[in-house]
Amino acid sequence: MDYSMLPNQDFSVRPTNTSNVVEAGNITATSSSSLADELSGKREMVLGKNLHSSNFKITEHNEAYMNEIIDKYREHLEERTRHQLGFPCNLDLKYETLAQLLPFSINNLGDPFIESSYGIHSRLFELGVLDWFARLWELDESEYWGYVTNCGSEGNLHGVLIGREMFTDGVLYASTESHYAVWKASRICRMRCVKVKTLETGEMDCSDFKVKLLQNRNQPAIVNVNIGTTVKGAIDDLDQIIKVLEESGFEGRFYIHCDAALYGLMLPFVQHAPKVTFKKPIGSVSVSGHKFLGCPMPCGVQMTRKSHIKAISREIEWIASTDSTIMGSRSGHASIFLWYGLSKKGHSGLKEDVEKCLANAKYLKNRLEEVGIVAMLNEFSNIVVFEQPRSMDFVRKWQLVCEGEFAHVVVMPNVTREKLSAFIDDLLANRLD
Amino acid sequence: MDYSMLPNQDFSVRPTNTSNVVEAGNITATSSSSLADELSGKREMVLGKNLHSSNFKITEHNEAYMNEIIDKYREHLEERTRHQLGFPCNLDLKYETLAQLLPFSINNLGDPFIESSYGIHSRLFELGVLDWFARLWELDESEYWGYVTNCGSEGNLHGVLIGREMFTDGVLYASTESHYAVWKASRICRMRCVKVKTLETGEMDCSDFKVKLLQNRNQPAIVNVNIGTTVKGAIDDLDQIIKVLEESGFEGRFYIHCDAALYGLMLPFVQHAPKVTFKKPIGSVSVSGHKFLGCPMPCGVQMTRKSHIKAISREIEWIASTDSTIMGSRSGHASIFLWYGLSKKGHSGLKEDVEKCLANAKYLKNRLEEVGIVAMLNEFSNIVVFEQPRSMDFVRKWQLVCEGEFAHVVVMPNVTREKLSAFIDDLLANRLD
Repeated sequence: MDYSMLPNQDFSVRPTNTSNVVEAGNITATSSSSLADELSGKREMVLGKNLHSSNFKITEHNEAYMNEIIDKYREHLEERTRHQLGFPCNLDLKYETLAQLLPFSINNLGDPFIESSYGIHSRLFELGVLDWFARLWELDESEYWGYVTNCGSEGNLHGVLIGREMFTDGVLYASTESHYAVWKASRICRMRCVKVKTLETGEMDCSDFKVKLLQNRNQPAIVNVNIGTTVKGAIDDLDQIIKVLEESGFEGRFYIHCDAALYGLMLPFVQHAPKVTFKKPIGSVSVSGHKFLGCPMPCGVQMTRKSHIKAISREIEWIASTDSTIMGSRSGHASIFLWYGLSKKGHSGLKEDVEKCLANAKYLKNRLEEVGIVAMLNEFSNIVVFEQPRSMDFVRKWQLVCEGEFAHVVVMPNVTREKLSAFIDDLLANRLD
Repeated sequence: MDYSMLPNQDFSVRPTNTSNVVEAGNITATSSSSLADELSGKREMVLGKNLHSSNFKITEHNEAYMNEIIDKYREHLEERTRHQLGFPCNLDLKYETLAQLLPFSINNLGDPFIESSYGIHSRLFELGVLDWFARLWELDESEYWGYVTNCGSEGNLHGVLIGREMFTDGVLYASTESHYAVWKASRICRMRCVKVKTLETGEMDCSDFKVKLLQNRNQPAIVNVNIGTTVKGAIDDLDQIIKVLEESGFEGRFYIHCDAALYGLMLPFVQHAPKVTFKKPIGSVSVSGHKFLGCPMPCGVQMTRKSHIKAISREIEWIASTDSTIMGSRSGHASIFLWYGLSKKGHSGLKEDVEKCLANAKYLKNRLEEVGIVAMLNEFSNIVVFEQPRSMDFVRKWQLVCEGEFAHVVVMPNVTREKLSAFIDDLLANRLD
């Protein structure tokens, strides 16, 4: 296929062509007339216009209404969870044991390594999780600093920020297929950002990277390296990127942040896959907890070298607040879910899951090609890219992520061959319509 | 009392004098030897040193160990929840109905008003919550933009950021008693920040504000207004601040963000209390959801004028991603808890809670003074400040927030007179030791 026709931009949270007209989903009106009013079909939501004719209006002291909404919503979630193929969320969630902790206001205020006097925290879990990742990424327990974040974007913002604090006049480099969180971070942090071209696979074009570097040879380089792009699942060549930096005279004048949102918990368990390790001259890595591991709330881990945080803490005022995270309050529940998920799965469970996903992704690609649909699947990837189905109802039903003429399916651990078969059958039936 | 001796800096997440030596709390060693290893008493945690001899190490595939940890931890949380007086968290949580939603990976990706194709979201709840706050803060449904944040600090960062994008050469003004999130935001956003002195009560000194403004008369002003400081619960005089800005020639050249983390859900329900409203020339307000309302996870609401977001969206690249939030993935659970809490309490329930808290705070102040302890309580405030107890065990037991020679108790809805009496008895017993 002509890879060059594939989209060059992240579309992970882009609406599809028609998605500014939103349906209230499968929640339908009930006998309650106020509920019927709220759930009356379609509404239009446009940025800036703030039109939303339908939402779950707050009606005070009406428990019957509240419970009715929650019940209907649960049914809706069940249906939506059954038909979700476009986003990298593992929906195979079994965390029942943790329901007993729900009533507690667990808050890991500030830095994980500096305990606040607020006693209702889960730092012991958080540190267990961080130690686990430090071992995975080969950074000694005494050498790392990190924390459990609210999401992958927070990790990317934090990584870019450390780079900026290390090299205040640094230029940020990121491939055009990087997650939009990186552009956001550069804007928030007031950094100059240079976009680097990509190859057809979606990975950073290192020859273009070299050209761009040499155009800015007097300024240090802060580089976002994609360990799996959002759209094509392409892995930037970390070793080659380091080589280019060193060859171009940037030794000792660069900082690398690895955005490993999805693949951070996949590649370590795949033979011959490229390795993210702090034995290489990288500064930080971030990974999501709600993606491959399937925590029910967005969360992630950001890890860096202790020496970087120490260096920064001597210089910047906000570290003096003993909090080098981006936020102040942090959900203590997230750390417990991460701890529980990693304990339960372990390396062998994750390895099994990854192998299953990669095999099922190949299965999907083959099945699509068998029925004449052009599809793309990168090595070590569980993201299958193919031409966008024409029916927007179909796209919404399966929650496909679309950009331009393409859509993708992320084959997660909860996606079985049966589900993929049903998807293909539905796709074919839809094509014939 | 000599108010000037009270601390001038936020200490909300500062460790107490001894808090870099942390105990594993009330979780004690059990028959499981691995658990005993993990929970072996004290450990030292120092920023940068990364020493943590004790944490809940991840032991793979050992469900007995996992369940034992979780059970013990729940007991620990129960005890810590009983003895929590220092932080503004309402621990009176009754959200059992929502436990059924825990297994779902609910994610309000990106902007609340632009639906992503990810179907497992709770935007209908989020919009209901935002509408409720828009009514509270008197901003027409068609005139606001906002979102449910991960915490108060995210709201503050977002507010400061809108100000910076409106006035790219603006100077940020905040009183010395502002939350450290504001200094963090100024550092992250690369903005010049001017600290304004406070009065003895803790509120911004408007004459010093005027002096500082006039020193920077050529640059627009971005002002953080504290609707309740963290330490003393002081309310900056919004009307006076606006007057000073206009008198100093800043009309049309200022942006005001109101940090109403705790009081945002209290003051509207207190007669004669100062009013936060968009009928005044403010740009944004943020409030926490885990504070007065008691959501079990950190969360909050950030609200601004639609016109500001529209103005910014024409200029900045990251709005083009159709996401003007700080993060990408956002917990959909938080919106549901907010919706449920607000529906259940309603205006009348919140009013009752606030009245109870203010009365109990007065009760605590009087009881402290009766036993010869100097105490301070601002008008409309539920934060009682008093001399720091000598025993650090006592401070840790009651999770008091301390700075310098002072400590404070935040009288939340779950804090009864019985608990306050027990606290005072314990304090007196401790003094006699």
